[in-house]
Amino acid sequence: MPIEDVLLDLKHKIEKNLPAGVTITDVEFEGPQLVLYTEEPRKFADDGNIIRNLAKELRTRIAMRPDPRVLATPEDSISIIEEVVPKESVISSYYFDPDSGEVIIEAEKPGLVIGKHGATLREITKQIGWIPKVVRTPPIKSRTVKNIREFMRNNLKERKEILKTVGRKIHRECTSKDQWVRVTALGGCKEVGRSCFLLSTPESRILIDCGVNVGSDENMTPYLYVPEVFPLNQIDAVIVTHAHLDHQGLVPLLFKYGYEGPVYCTPPTRDLMVLLQLDYIDVAAKEGKKIPYESGMVAKTLKHTIPLDYEEVTDIAPDIKLTFHNAGHILGSAISHFHIGDGLHNVVFTGDYKYEKTRLFDPAVNKFPRVETVISEATYGNANAFQPALKDAEKHLQMVVKNTIERGGIAVIPAFAVGRSQEVMIVLEESIRKGLIPEVPVYLDGMIWEATAIHATHPEYLNNDLRKLIFQKGQNPFLSECFKPVDSHEARQKIIQNPQPCVILATSGMMNGGPVMEYFKAFAEDPRNTLVFVGYQADGTIGRRIQKGWKEIPMTGKNGSTEMLKMNMEVQVVDGFSGHSDRRQLMEYVKRMQPRPERVFTEHGDEKACVDLASSVYKKLKIETRALTNLETVRLL
Amino acid sequence: MPIEDVLLDLKHKIEKNLPAGVTITDVEFEGPQLVLYTEEPRKFADDGNIIRNLAKELRTRIAMRPDPRVLATPEDSISIIEEVVPKESVISSYYFDPDSGEVIIEAEKPGLVIGKHGATLREITKQIGWIPKVVRTPPIKSRTVKNIREFMRNNLKERKEILKTVGRKIHRECTSKDQWVRVTALGGCKEVGRSCFLLSTPESRILIDCGVNVGSDENMTPYLYVPEVFPLNQIDAVIVTHAHLDHQGLVPLLFKYGYEGPVYCTPPTRDLMVLLQLDYIDVAAKEGKKIPYESGMVAKTLKHTIPLDYEEVTDIAPDIKLTFHNAGHILGSAISHFHIGDGLHNVVFTGDYKYEKTRLFDPAVNKFPRVETVISEATYGNANAFQPALKDAEKHLQMVVKNTIERGGIAVIPAFAVGRSQEVMIVLEESIRKGLIPEVPVYLDGMIWEATAIHATHPEYLNNDLRKLIFQKGQNPFLSECFKPVDSHEARQKIIQNPQPCVILATSGMMNGGPVMEYFKAFAEDPRNTLVFVGYQADGTIGRRIQKGWKEIPMTGKNGSTEMLKMNMEVQVVDGFSGHSDRRQLMEYVKRMQPRPERVFTEHGDEKACVDLASSVYKKLKIETRALTNLETVRLL
Repeated sequence: MPIEDVLLDLKHKIEKNLPAGVTITDVEFEGPQLVLYTEEPRKFADDGNIIRNLAKELRTRIAMRPDPRVLATPEDSISIIEEVVPKESVISSYYFDPDSGEVIIEAEKPGLVIGKHGATLREITKQIGWIPKVVRTPPIKSRTVKNIREFMRNNLKERKEILKTVGRKIHRECTSKDQWVRVTALGGCKEVGRSCFLLSTPESRILIDCGVNVGSDENMTPYLYVPEVFPLNQIDAVIVTHAHLDHQGLVPLLFKYGYEGPVYCTPPTRDLMVLLQLDYIDVAAKEGKKIPYESGMVAKTLKHTIPLDYEEVTDIAPDIKLTFHNAGHILGSAISHFHIGDGLHNVVFTGDYKYEKTRLFDPAVNKFPRVETVISEATYGNANAFQPALKDAEKHLQMVVKNTIERGGIAVIPAFAVGRSQEVMIVLEESIRKGLIPEVPVYLDGMIWEATAIHATHPEYLNNDLRKLIFQKGQNPFLSECFKPVDSHEARQKIIQNPQPCVILATSGMMNGGPVMEYFKAFAEDPRNTLVFVGYQADGTIGRRIQKGWKEIPMTGKNGSTEMLKMNMEVQVVDGFSGHSDRRQLMEYVKRMQPRPERVFTEHGDEKACVDLASSVYKKLKIETRALTNLETVRLL
Repeated sequence: MPIEDVLLDLKHKIEKNLPAGVTITDVEFEGPQLVLYTEEPRKFADDGNIIRNLAKELRTRIAMRPDPRVLATPEDSISIIEEVVPKESVISSYYFDPDSGEVIIEAEKPGLVIGKHGATLREITKQIGWIPKVVRTPPIKSRTVKNIREFMRNNLKERKEILKTVGRKIHRECTSKDQWVRVTALGGCKEVGRSCFLLSTPESRILIDCGVNVGSDENMTPYLYVPEVFPLNQIDAVIVTHAHLDHQGLVPLLFKYGYEGPVYCTPPTRDLMVLLQLDYIDVAAKEGKKIPYESGMVAKTLKHTIPLDYEEVTDIAPDIKLTFHNAGHILGSAISHFHIGDGLHNVVFTGDYKYEKTRLFDPAVNKFPRVETVISEATYGNANAFQPALKDAEKHLQMVVKNTIERGGIAVIPAFAVGRSQEVMIVLEESIRKGLIPEVPVYLDGMIWEATAIHATHPEYLNNDLRKLIFQKGQNPFLSECFKPVDSHEARQKIIQNPQPCVILATSGMMNGGPVMEYFKAFAEDPRNTLVFVGYQADGTIGRRIQKGWKEIPMTGKNGSTEMLKMNMEVQVVDGFSGHSDRRQLMEYVKRMQPRPERVFTEHGDEKACVDLASSVYKKLKIETRALTNLETVRLL
């Protein structure tokens, strides 16, 4: 059936299901959802159940778009909204898009604009006709969030066209009589870096992640040139499980080589992704490396990104529904559940996950309506890869920082911008608040502050305890006064030239560049100071050398000459802050999965880790399993 | 390097290696070989070593093409050839192709035209300039062979263009830095029928077999629509391991859907392939089934077919060399050995094979210069799938026929046209010659006689004993007077209406149509007659029903009504004539393979057979192994 007929058919169905007197003028697909055009938005707003019932009946997501002719003027609308919405919500901006009939309201407390079960939103529509969409005013100013929102506002027309195209493609007719499901491993198998998988059926092709291995020139890129994925315009959708570069660093490259389809990820992943992609090409340029794509491709990616919240079942292809679930790894990280066909097969890509409650996140979800195949990460899959408990790691950190401060020293913590930094920040904030460590400034340098701002913008993606603290008690730990962003060369020099007891969190996490190096150079020779590692240090990095006990570190000086830096500062390795499940958690995750899966494939770990984990899953849990190899295709059904 | 530069480079190299005074005018690729153009064919013919040494030096196959201006006239040439060549060779025709400078000589005894180590051929060139190519005059008239030869002669120009294109594609430059080898299963895994595999590297894609499952509408076709193979113009070469329809029946479909490249197979496979393809679409049309392609596509396939003899190492892609070896299954059946890269990986596709000497063929070859991966058939892979020894099968057949004849009866043997028929013929001929069964006519009906004619045209592809019998003793068993082809409806009616003790071999092999049904109807009610099964009877066929013991067989009468046929004739099942290795032979084939392979994948058998064989190969031979699944891709390197 041609798509126009599908739409006509849907329109008839909807009209049959509408209450008497409520009319629509048209229907259209807009990305994964169906939108209804109406001259009577107020009637729809009158009864919150109309849309809900339609969505249930048609088993799809539905939104309503008012006719521009029935809308109040923006001026009138603003004064009405400010009457309807409680002042405490603190609205910071409005953006009216007559084309979609949406008004985007930025508020400090979005919940108050939404009202109970959306009652306030409906009231707004009833009075002004416009459909309000609410976003949070970032509690910490974020350049990234601001730029993304502006960019999206400036490209609404193009965006609408993209969504229309995507929507019509998703809802095309299924044509094949065959039924099969395959997964092709394109990167990240028996290795870490360049994660990339293709999920395919006779109808559809879905790419899951498209990472870059920044540590390798030879194996930097997934095998994107194989016929299963190339030409890229045959791909239906790209899924990004989380924002780390080894999972999404080359998504813009797909657009450079002809991909034109949607990118699905959670809203925080979208924001972090833009931040990390721009930083990636920026760093590559500064290091004189080949830049795989220009910032224009980052923008193009953003234009094509469709954010999906956790637990939102979404059609992404004629025969595939995607649902994201919390993965507990970093902000917005998602376990991706694919429901294929009408009950044909269910496959879960875990992406990176943490099966333990951490300071920031709930443990990864492992309860699904159905699941036959699991493709699981295996970073700590080695038989003996146990990590200390988080509580112990935290105590260790507290002790190290306390000792350093008390002897008048400075604790320098190299950290990745996204993930462990925020975890460590929460621990430090609580320790200071509770008096467990002295009240000293915690400096945040590099992208850490910006990444933290993005965390603060998406509190819904943090765990229960943190959300309670923020929403109910009004205590946002990220806003604590102990945190001091370092936002200029001068600010950094001030800290260096007038050293006082403090904690410094700075990038990069493995000391292969970034502001952390300046602090290190300044503070390495004083034995009162401490260098605290909270993350994994790869071979070949300076961090690794220091861990090995090097006492003299060669540094490139200002004029290019090599100077030897004397290491007198204390070195402490605090294990246990990993965002990955350790061996025990990996096994528990599978063991406690509901329902029990039929087979588990392992990936994202060195060869031994992947094989060890697979072998144990088979031996201990009696589940069919295998470590995947790049470039192989497995048949799931 | 552009291909023109490659050729120029080759020309310089050749000129440097030529003896003083011998010159060439040009070089060009022609399929997998390099051809030299010269005005001095006589000088090349003078010294047989010139071409041989060049081929060794350049590690490629080389042929020489004389300039048309230096050739004798056809008339003069014929009289000179007839002076040079012994009369006993019995030349039946000449075809002069001035474009290639070749003269095709058809002779009853090609060996006498060739001379020792090609001495007579060289003498011919020395005297007339033309390059002689010798083919055998079919000892039994074969419509197929005649038509193919005529067709090829009539399309020499187009053929030359095809070979040039193929040759230039084979010798293109390798561009990828990656090194990997993959095999994708497209059909024939955990099933029999529609065999099809894709062998791929970063440089090349080779399709091995493209069969049709004639017994199934649903699973008739391999998975050709997947992106690894489609669009088909990206495939470098198609290999046909043998002529049965489940291995080659859909090769013409590839051309219908855009394939334009070469098809490699042995010369007998080519001839049998044309016969069986034309019969396949003919039968389908008669049965009112959908015809997958027209005869024009059979012709197109033939135009693109490049025959290769056993043991001939041939470049088929920039990084792949193919060598066929005897598989012992049917005439021309080949084990395909692929050497990939410069010593990178070696993979053997067994196709169907018999690892035992039979009346017609030597046992399948399992000695290779190198081999890492084997993809083996598993038709009789079941743990208990043992077949009686051939000797016992032959004795059983002799006894059955003897008893039938001696009681004045007729032995009706349903048989496939290609394979078992000729095996049974040889046994019957010898039995009659040696007086083990009475001297009665052996009628051959259906395509059996035509297929036998193709066997007689290619005696080089029969085993040592048969070749000796034919070439040294001048006894071609296929020419025995006991064999009586039935070539018309009238001839068949004569046999039926005046029944005399005799043997009748007729198609189809499973009694689902064909002339065998007319004999069956005529002779089923007389208990003196015997129905002798020598091949497998699939479920749902009349043959299978009779084997199960049905005593009344429903038959469609002339006016479409169903008549019940009373089964009074004796039924005998003679096991052991299979062209497939039985379980013991499959295991022995792998066990005695030299060198020992690193891994074995199984295919071409029902699921249990494939899994059983794989499991035993692992347990008993300690070789990594797995039963392949359709649509999966395995990484070999």
